[in-house]
Amino acid sequence: MAETIFQKIINGEIPASKVYETDTVLAFLDINPVHKGHTLVIPKKPIKDIHTLSDIAAGDLMRAIVVVADAVKKATGAPGINIISNNGSEAGQEVFHLHFHIIPRFNKTEFGRLPHTKYESDEEQVKIAQQIADMVKSQYKESE
Amino acid sequence: MAETIFQKIINGEIPASKVYETDTVLAFLDINPVHKGHTLVIPKKPIKDIHTLSDIAAGDLMRAIVVVADAVKKATGAPGINIISNNGSEAGQEVFHLHFHIIPRFNKTEFGRLPHTKYESDEEQVKIAQQIADMVKSQYKESE
Repeated sequence: MAETIFQKIINGEIPASKVYETDTVLAFLDINPVHKGHTLVIPKKPIKDIHTLSDIAAGDLMRAIVVVADAVKKATGAPGINIISNNGSEAGQEVFHLHFHIIPRFNKTEFGRLPHTKYESDEEQVKIAQQIADMVKSQYKESE
Repeated sequence: MAETIFQKIINGEIPASKVYETDTVLAFLDINPVHKGHTLVIPKKPIKDIHTLSDIAAGDLMRAIVVVADAVKKATGAPGINIISNNGSEAGQEVFHLHFHIIPRFNKTEFGRLPHTKYESDEEQVKIAQQIADMVKSQYKESE
């Protein structure tokens, strides 16, 4: 797989406005921000998306998200924070190195709401929940 | 603070289509889904938002997000997954109990992109990064 722009930032090959760094996690400003102060939190390992995040890396990453979300809120004075991760090109992922956007928000009316759908029946809802629950169980079986 | 609808779900006072549960985390279908299979992952403790998430709860929550994201992807056949948490009413938070949306996505053109802004200069970008980095450092000082 070709090296992503985030890997180049981790390697120090291209510059970034870093705001936080640990042994396992790096946070830096998104150069195309929704609002100024919009920050990306990424694992330093070349993890493609949420589906390949190990348990240990998961903890490190979420703890960094908490730290950075607090810091972005205080530094920008934003009363609200969106945390967004897009996984897969169909979900809008553009750089194939897992990243969480930390976006300061000032006014809930500034962005539209995503379009929504409805379950056709309670039965359909229960059925889909069961399908997801079955998939969770099959993951445990795989790892046993 | 009044009990949220999520607290009532945790307490078993109102029903939900649960898909995953551990000692510390619960996942259930969003009843107003962006797409069918749209799931919410929440800590069982009454944590209001990302800013009050402890280190231990952070690890548990992100590990559950990985499990549920995988299961939703497989159960729905969605090639993409959005993970979204809105913190603060200005960011669109409606239930004041921390939650992460796990949203199956089928086509990247179905939703618009958030409006973006630009830094006026490299200097402005560096300055804002420094402000956030300073806030990170002040958090460490607070916890020492």
